[in-house]
This record gives sequence, structure tokens and C-alpha cells, in this order.
Amino acid sequence: MNLEGFKDPSELQNYTKEQLEDLAKDIRHFLIEKLSITGGHLGPNLGVVELTLTLHQLFDSPKDKFIWDVGHQAYVHKILTGRADQFDQLRQYKGLCGFPKRNESEHDVWETGHSSTSLSAAMGMATARDLKGTDESVIAVIGDGALTGGMALEALNHIGHEQTNLIVILNDNEMSIAPNVGALHNVLGRLRTAGKYKKAKEELEQLLKKIPAFGGKIASTAERVKDSLKYLLVSGIFFEELGFTYLGPVDGHDLDDLAENLKYAKKTKGPVLIHVLTKKGKGYEPAENDAKGTWHGLGPYKIESGEVVKKPGPPSYSGVFAETLKKIAREDKRIVALTAAMPGGTKLDVFAKEFPERMFDVGIAEQHATTMAGGLATQGMKPVFAVYSTFLQRGYDQIVHDVCRQNLNVVFAIDRAGLVGADGETHQGVFDIAFLRHLPNMKILMPKDENELQHMIYTATQYDDGPIAVRYPRGNGYGIKMDDQLKKLPIGQWETIQDGSDACILTFGTMLPVAEAAIKQLEAQGISVKLVNANSVKPLDEALLKELALATMPIITLEEAALQGGFGSAVLEFFHDNSYHNMEIKRMGIPDQFIEHGSVDELLEEIGLTENKVVEELLTMLPKKRKRA
Amino acid sequence: MNLEGFKDPSELQNYTKEQLEDLAKDIRHFLIEKLSITGGHLGPNLGVVELTLTLHQLFDSPKDKFIWDVGHQAYVHKILTGRADQFDQLRQYKGLCGFPKRNESEHDVWETGHSSTSLSAAMGMATARDLKGTDESVIAVIGDGALTGGMALEALNHIGHEQTNLIVILNDNEMSIAPNVGALHNVLGRLRTAGKYKKAKEELEQLLKKIPAFGGKIASTAERVKDSLKYLLVSGIFFEELGFTYLGPVDGHDLDDLAENLKYAKKTKGPVLIHVLTKKGKGYEPAENDAKGTWHGLGPYKIESGEVVKKPGPPSYSGVFAETLKKIAREDKRIVALTAAMPGGTKLDVFAKEFPERMFDVGIAEQHATTMAGGLATQGMKPVFAVYSTFLQRGYDQIVHDVCRQNLNVVFAIDRAGLVGADGETHQGVFDIAFLRHLPNMKILMPKDENELQHMIYTATQYDDGPIAVRYPRGNGYGIKMDDQLKKLPIGQWETIQDGSDACILTFGTMLPVAEAAIKQLEAQGISVKLVNANSVKPLDEALLKELALATMPIITLEEAALQGGFGSAVLEFFHDNSYHNMEIKRMGIPDQFIEHGSVDELLEEIGLTENKVVEELLTMLPKKRKRA
Repeated sequence: MNLEGFKDPSELQNYTKEQLEDLAKDIRHFLIEKLSITGGHLGPNLGVVELTLTLHQLFDSPKDKFIWDVGHQAYVHKILTGRADQFDQLRQYKGLCGFPKRNESEHDVWETGHSSTSLSAAMGMATARDLKGTDESVIAVIGDGALTGGMALEALNHIGHEQTNLIVILNDNEMSIAPNVGALHNVLGRLRTAGKYKKAKEELEQLLKKIPAFGGKIASTAERVKDSLKYLLVSGIFFEELGFTYLGPVDGHDLDDLAENLKYAKKTKGPVLIHVLTKKGKGYEPAENDAKGTWHGLGPYKIESGEVVKKPGPPSYSGVFAETLKKIAREDKRIVALTAAMPGGTKLDVFAKEFPERMFDVGIAEQHATTMAGGLATQGMKPVFAVYSTFLQRGYDQIVHDVCRQNLNVVFAIDRAGLVGADGETHQGVFDIAFLRHLPNMKILMPKDENELQHMIYTATQYDDGPIAVRYPRGNGYGIKMDDQLKKLPIGQWETIQDGSDACILTFGTMLPVAEAAIKQLEAQGISVKLVNANSVKPLDEALLKELALATMPIITLEEAALQGGFGSAVLEFFHDNSYHNMEIKRMGIPDQFIEHGSVDELLEEIGLTENKVVEELLTMLPKKRKRA
Repeated sequence: MNLEGFKDPSELQNYTKEQLEDLAKDIRHFLIEKLSITGGHLGPNLGVVELTLTLHQLFDSPKDKFIWDVGHQAYVHKILTGRADQFDQLRQYKGLCGFPKRNESEHDVWETGHSSTSLSAAMGMATARDLKGTDESVIAVIGDGALTGGMALEALNHIGHEQTNLIVILNDNEMSIAPNVGALHNVLGRLRTAGKYKKAKEELEQLLKKIPAFGGKIASTAERVKDSLKYLLVSGIFFEELGFTYLGPVDGHDLDDLAENLKYAKKTKGPVLIHVLTKKGKGYEPAENDAKGTWHGLGPYKIESGEVVKKPGPPSYSGVFAETLKKIAREDKRIVALTAAMPGGTKLDVFAKEFPERMFDVGIAEQHATTMAGGLATQGMKPVFAVYSTFLQRGYDQIVHDVCRQNLNVVFAIDRAGLVGADGETHQGVFDIAFLRHLPNMKILMPKDENELQHMIYTATQYDDGPIAVRYPRGNGYGIKMDDQLKKLPIGQWETIQDGSDACILTFGTMLPVAEAAIKQLEAQGISVKLVNANSVKPLDEALLKELALATMPIITLEEAALQGGFGSAVLEFFHDNSYHNMEIKRMGIPDQFIEHGSVDELLEEIGLTENKVVEELLTMLPKKRKRA
């Protein structure tokens, strides 16, 4: 059928099973085709086609609330709620968001992007319902990986205690982004293999009735056995212990099985957890047979061959990081690498191949990873926690309290720092400078290119006076020549890229080429601009700043990071704290707003972090020069 | 015995049971006496006397590592490791810290203060041990309340998966700071009542052997029953499911029972959880019969009567907050209050008395609380999350991602903002401005007194354009007259307390009286200083700042908060962003260091946030005036 014409999910209520099956086929075909051009999260969405159809058939969205954990599995929901016609612009500038978005549709009642938030949000909505006395259903759909995040466990605990009416659908596909980690995964594994436990339970109840011993003098034990019947099988005991009614396992691709359990859950008082088994990539062979997680989220691909279209290019920053760490680890036995469920994204999988016993994937658990790194550091190890900037937000208190306060030698390798593009608002790595800079003992570095990155990683691992963060962008380096020998860089000593007498630009990382291009334009106008690679955001290069103060040169600070409390603010603080009160300084960076999805270039253009804008700003600071030009 | 002479815990290895029992008595006597003068965490420490003695007898600290979760139960450990003579200065300036402190003793291997970190730290230490090939034991002692924190669950999950050798002692006293919340608590409750489950297990095994049906044709079920024997009783199944060997419940005041289980745990491969039942306040009647949690941590008291010495004084800020919220909730049905295990500290217990169904204590779960508040807000409710500044750090990612990004109407009532005194480094509420200010959509207010607080709380609850934070200090207000009628304050419009022509002080909250006193001194020297109550940290009062810019007055910004990225930085940012480049501004606040324990006055003196220092700084900015004076 023409999915573009599908505008109202309530139409599904009258669909026969055959119609639903046909629609499922159409949706899979649609997704495989559209995403082959735009890229996106194919695997997770192919896995939830039947689940999403059943939800929209049996429940009444938006009155009933669906909350999609992480949210990259909400494409089917988007198709069924009238947005199929927007998939050509999926994850593109001003186009359809890759995650639920409240301003896109009334059916998107909660925005996600980070993991493990759905149960807490659902608890809030269900509580509001109970206080208001309305009767809508609240349903959270959460993956087995997301369940290992601490806040999901906090929510399970609280929901079980309050006995609130809500439905949790555990979408168990045996693989979060990378194969799952943790004991919880083993619990789920046992549930999975237990099959139809209800039947076995009935069988056992019959059996026990026939046993005379249970009526005898050991009544207390027998009573306990009876009460404990539900414990007798490898059932959903983990969740039942927490106060949930456990249903399942349910075949997530069987419409009848899904419908039966969802109907039962709808009638059940108190919290219900439905354990649904799905297959990521279901219905598209290359995605089904995906051991490495390639098909979780990806760029364009060829449908026939399943070949992922790769643009050849220089090595990624992540790759350079991992290769460098491997090199260092060969010599330095203290190195231990940590990731929170991102071995592929951070490229620590490369490290793990050579040093499997020195790499720990702790699951979606940034808090635990940060503090575990602290524990390692107290014993003389050199933990390196590789983590996306946006996900490190979840370890903030642990960075403050466990690492910085104890001044422990933990290295934070902050990947995806700066704008990330298509993933949008929830994934932009723009706050890390602002949330780390005010922490005592913390050092923050950022390299200008992949060669500087390798030296910085080495420098960080050899630094023995507390925590140190090296942030680097998403994507590829420049393909420049890499030095053979790793070297220790002086921390807090910036690099003057070129001298100049009229003004100065202080910048670092991804903004250096922008500044360079701007300076070329200005030179053509006869303006001489000093360019500094301010590769240490904390500490600042105070000697260099003092020189600038003495020269009373106008300064632009330029950063791909939040302006408030950022690098530019640090520069302002320095000058005023040292009584250089008459400095003319213009801060350029990311304004006080969340930045939506789009290509990084489009986003930089939107927020004015471009060479032309730098030129323009600088000219307003040099009125005389401007006239001369 | 003379506890002051006890310097080496290894002496305990040769102690008889009787000697240990005598020592336990002496320690209790010592704690009750010393703390009656200094105050401190009496209840938790009386509860772990036997546990701590047994740990130090059977293990070899500091080679073996003890990690005390939260850490306020480490006094006995401090006594046994040579610090009894410092208890007269407990929690006082330059005196003994109320938490483990690495620079105090080699026996304090990990610093705590916030909850739920011990398992992650232990995992780090145990992993380091395994990589280095040494053989020390690693033992984390964690309370039942702390176990509800998400990061503890993340750690349990990871440890269970890795099967690392370490011992977790679950110190189950049925009460964290307030009575525990959550389904997990019910699990523990069932374990508690199960008594000696091992004996019952043996009994049942005998029974099953006698049942002929189990040899019959329904073998598969029978097999499952046999495998599931451990599930038959209300045993430690929750922890066993996660991969731990569960031992207990153990009587935490029975030296033999403790020793037997700890010895067994020491020999056991993989992670072990020993469930120890203790009684908070054990051995001191007033503390034993403590339903409200008064004896958890408190000031001086009279030993005989158990009467807590209370200084009469004006109502606390927390109290004013709670009373105000109650008043508002009577009219405004949208109000819902949330606390993360701090109903007493935040005074929300007062609110809950009138509105039990509109107050939620979610356990030690700041992440969940923040996002649940977001969920409530999406449904038109007005959630108010009352939380200590330092504990809100743990909800940072949720504030960014779930609340600010969706621009939801969540009110953060940030209690204990600024220096808190005796609790020290881990509890100072000095980072919240720096970690909230850079977040789009966030508003941050702070009142100058309790009357302004009540209006601000009202203003925040009536604000309908996104998140808003009202921060207020620990302790009592000034006892000023409270307005009868609550009113809405204009957000971002500061209050000029007094005019002046030579300079200006921009400040707020607790620093206003400091500024006022300084200004009096300056007036005596003929200097006229404008004083502004900058009660909105975000947004700033831009109109007022522009006036100051036009007057080119020297400005001091004064705040009891971290300087980097703080209020003063916001002021610098404003002037430079608006091209007022020649402003003379001096920022005063908390420097780039962690602030240890002591009275707030002593700490302010140490970091130079005093009236004299303000006078001194201002005089350096007015050289001419200074000469005239």
C-alpha cells in the first residue's frame, strides 16, 4: 500500500491479521529502500515492525502514551503516524528527526536519544494520569541493553514499589548497539531459553497436588514451596521480585502472540513487564546476520548486495585514538581501557583484539565506568575511559566526586566532541567543556589534527597528577603525516600557528581551519592576524595570554562548544582576574540553544561558525583597518 | 581500654572473642560520649561496631581494601586505625573528616560522601589486582538504601558478569537516611524474614528425595525443579540471578556469625554478597528507637536523656520552602513534590503530611527523579524536585537531555546551595550554577532571605515556559517578617538595594549581608557603593547591566559558588558580548579547589569571601578614592 497516505493510526483498529501482515511487509520494504539512500537505524526498526503495528492497533495513540527508549526504533511509529512522506529527508537538515520529536507529531509524547530514560518518563506520565483521574495506558518500550543503565533500574525499583499501572515492553534482541554486557543479560538469556514457562508451571502445579508429603508434618516447608511456585521455574523471577507481573517470552514477530499478551497486560493491575523477543534486522538478510552491529545505524548501502557504501578517507579520530592506545599499552602495562557499550564507536574493539584482558565493556553504565576507572587509578593503573561527549554527561557526578576530588589519574578520551550532525540535539557534544572546566584538578585538551591527537593521548596517559580529558571530533582526520615517535606535549602551552599584529584568534580543534581561512581573507585586505592553537582549554597558556594583554590586541575566541562557561569565558576570566580590564574580546561559539540535526557544515552555517562570520566579526573590531581596506 | 592508644588494627588478629566484645563496648561508649559534644553520624556507626571489628580481625588492612559506601559509617574504622585521639575535632575545621579521607590514613583507600559508589570503586580495585597478579581482598560495605542508586545496580550487573573476586557486604539496617523506598527494599524484607534459609533448604532436599513422582515420566519438569532448588525458598535469589554467591542473612551483632560468613566469603571464588542485618544506633536506646532518622546524623545531645541540643532560631530555608509549597498546593492541583530519599532533610515530610498522594520519595535515585519530573510535566503537572545541590549533580544528564531540551516545566528546589560546613568537600553545593548555567532554557534564581524564597517558590511554580531552579542555602533564615500574600516576581529583574556612585557590587543570596557590611565600611571612608541583589543568575538583568556599562562603574561580583563559569563569568560574558570592553570587573567567589569541612564562617574566611576582603578588593579598584580616604 501507499504508506505516504497513512495518516491516522486508529485505522489499524479494524485491520485483519492479513492486512497487518501485508502492511508489515510494505513497511519493511519501505524502510530498506528509503534508508539505503539516507542511512539511518535500519536494524532496530526492522525488529519492531509487528510490535509497533500491534501497539497502534490495540491502543489509542496519542491518548495512550508510547515512550520509545533511546528512540532510534521509532521509524515504524513515525510511518504509522503520518510521516512516511518525510523519510527522504530523514536525519537531514530541517528534515525528519531520527528520534521521537514532540514538535513533529502529537504521537511523539517523549523525546529520547540517550538510553534508559523511558521507564522514568512513563512513571511520570502514569502518575500524572492517576492524580488527574484519567485512564490512558502508558507503555514504555525498552531494549535489553538500555535496561543495564542505572536509571532504568532505579525506575524499575520505584515503579515496583508504587505498583503503578503501566506496561513495560522489554524489547529483547540480544544485542544493544554492541552485544550486551552484564549479568542482567544472563538473566534474560535464561528467560529466553525457558520457552513457554506458563505451561510448565501448570504441569508442576498438577504434580505437586498429587504428592502426599506436602500435606504432612513439614507443613511450613510445604507452604513455602507452594508460595514459591513461581520461583520453581526459570521464569521472570527477577522482575517479579521487583513487583512486576511478568509476561512472556513473546515472539515479537508473531502478531497473535503479541496481541494476546498486550491485551492481557492492558487488563492487569499494577506494573506489567512483557518480555518480547525480536530479531534486529528482521526481514533483510544482511541486517539479520549482523554480528558486529554494523546494521544498527549506518549510512547508505546497496540493497541487493547489502554492501555498505563507504567513502574512502583518512583514518577516523576514533581509529587514531585506539591505535595509539594500543601502541602505548604495549609498553605501559598500567593502561586499561573502558567503554560503556560502545566498543565499535570508540574503536576500542581494535584495542580489545590485542588486549582482551585489558578492555572492559561495562554496559550502558557511564556512572559505573567513571568510578571503576577511579578505583583502578587508586591502585596505580592508568584507566582510559573512551566515551562520547554527550554520554559522559551521565557520569558528571562521578567525575566531580570520585575522580576530580580524589585527584585520580583517569584519562577521559572524549569522542564526538563538538557537533555530530545527523543524530542531532541529543548527541551534539557541545557541553563537555562547560561541565568539566569548573572542576578542580581537571585538565582539558583538544588536538588540531590526528597527529596532535596521538601525542595528546600519549601525554594524557603519561600524566601523573590527576584527571585529564582529551576531546576529539566525530569523523575523519585530515590524512596528514603521522609522526613515528609519540611524544609528551607540554600541557598548557599553546602553539602559535602564525604571527600577526592587528588582532588575534584563539581557537582549537575543528575551528582552526575555519580561522585559517578567515585569516587568508583578512590578509588580502591587509590585516595581519595572529593565530593560536589553544590546544589546552584548561589550563590556559597564561604566559601567552599575558603577552596578548600587553599588546592590547583585539581577540576572537572561537570554539565548537557551548559559549556559556566555555573556553572564551575562561579567557575573559583570566584577563579580568589579572586586572587586564580593557581587552577587546569577542567570543564565538555555540549559542544558548539546542542544535538540531543536519550536516555539520549546515549547522555551523546556521549558528555562524564560519570563515565569513569570523571575518565579519573581526572587521567590526578593527574599524580603522576596515576603512583602510 | 584506652582507645587513643589503638594504632594498629592488625593487633586484633590475636584478640579473643571476649576481648573483641569488651572492645565493642568501649567503642560504643566512646562514640556516644564524643559525639554528644561534636555531633556526627552516631546511628550508622553504632550499627557497624561488630562488623568493623570482624573485618579488621580477619583481613589485613590496608593491603586488603575496605570501601565504605557513603562513608558516614567509617568512624569505628577510624578508631581502629589510630585516629581515636582526633575525635574531639570531628567534622571541625582542619579536624577529622566525617568521611573516609585518603590523606588521613593509608587505611582509607577510597573517599566517599555520595551514595552508591563503593561497588564500582571495588570493581576497579579488584580488576587492578587481577591485572597485577596480587592477591588482596577487596570488600565493599554498602547499605540497603545505597543499593537503590542506579550506579550500584550498574556495578552489580557488571561484577556479576565478570565474576570478579570481591566481597560485597550488604549492611541492611532497614533504613537508609529515611525509611527505605522501593521494590528492592521488599526483596530485602523477604530475605530478612526468611531466617536461616540454609537449614530449610536441606530440609527440602531431603523431602524431595522421598517423592517418587520426581523419578517418573515428567523428568524434564523434575529436573528443572531440582536445578531450581535454590529458588524454592525466599533466598538471595535476586543477587544469585545477578551472578553473586549469596550468604546470609547474618546477625550483624553476632561476632561468631560474622566471622564464619566472612571466612567463607574469603575462600569463595567470584563475587560474594553477605547480607548482614544490623541495627542502627545499637547499644544506645534513644538511637535504637529512632523512627524518624534523627540519630542518623545530628548535632550535640545529652547522653542521659537522649535530648538533642537545639539552638532556638528562625525557620530553616528548607522549612520555609516546604510550608510555601504546601500553601501553593492547596490552590494549585498541578503541584507534585519529589525527593530522592531526603524527605526529612528537604522538609518534604511536612508537605507529605497534608498531601501524601502528591509526594514521591523515589529512593536514592536522582536520575530517575529528574526524568520522572519531566514525564509529569509533559502531562500538565507541575513537579517540584527538592534536592541538595551536591546530589543534583547526579541528575545532570537528565536535566540536560530530558528536561531542558524538551523545555519542560520542572521546578528544581535546590537546597544546601553554597557551603554546607561540617559535611565538607562532598557536600558543598558550589557547582550548581556552573553546571546549570550553560543549559538552554534553564532559569536560575536565588533569594536574599526567606521572605524572598517564598515568593520565588511561588514564582517558579507559576512559571510556564520551561525549567526553573531556585537555589537556597542550608540553615536558618533571618527571622524576618514574612509577607502574607505570595506574589509573582519578575524573572531577570534585579533589585537595587542601595544606590551609589563610585562602584557597584552585584551579589545574591548569602553574600548580600557580606556586601552590606563591606559597604558600611566603605561609606565610612567616603566611598559610595551601589548594591544590587542579583537574584536571577540566569537570565541576567540586561537593562541594569547596560546602565552600569554606561556609567562605567567598577564592579565586584560576589557569589558563594564556583568562580569558573559562575555568575561573575556570566557578567563578563554579557559585557563583552555587547561590546562593553572596558569594564573593570573583579569576580569574587569560590576558587578552583575543593573546600574541606569546617564551619561556614571559617571556610569563607579561608577562601576570602569576607567583608574585609570585599573592602580590600574594592579599594584596589578605586585608587584615587583610596588616597582621599
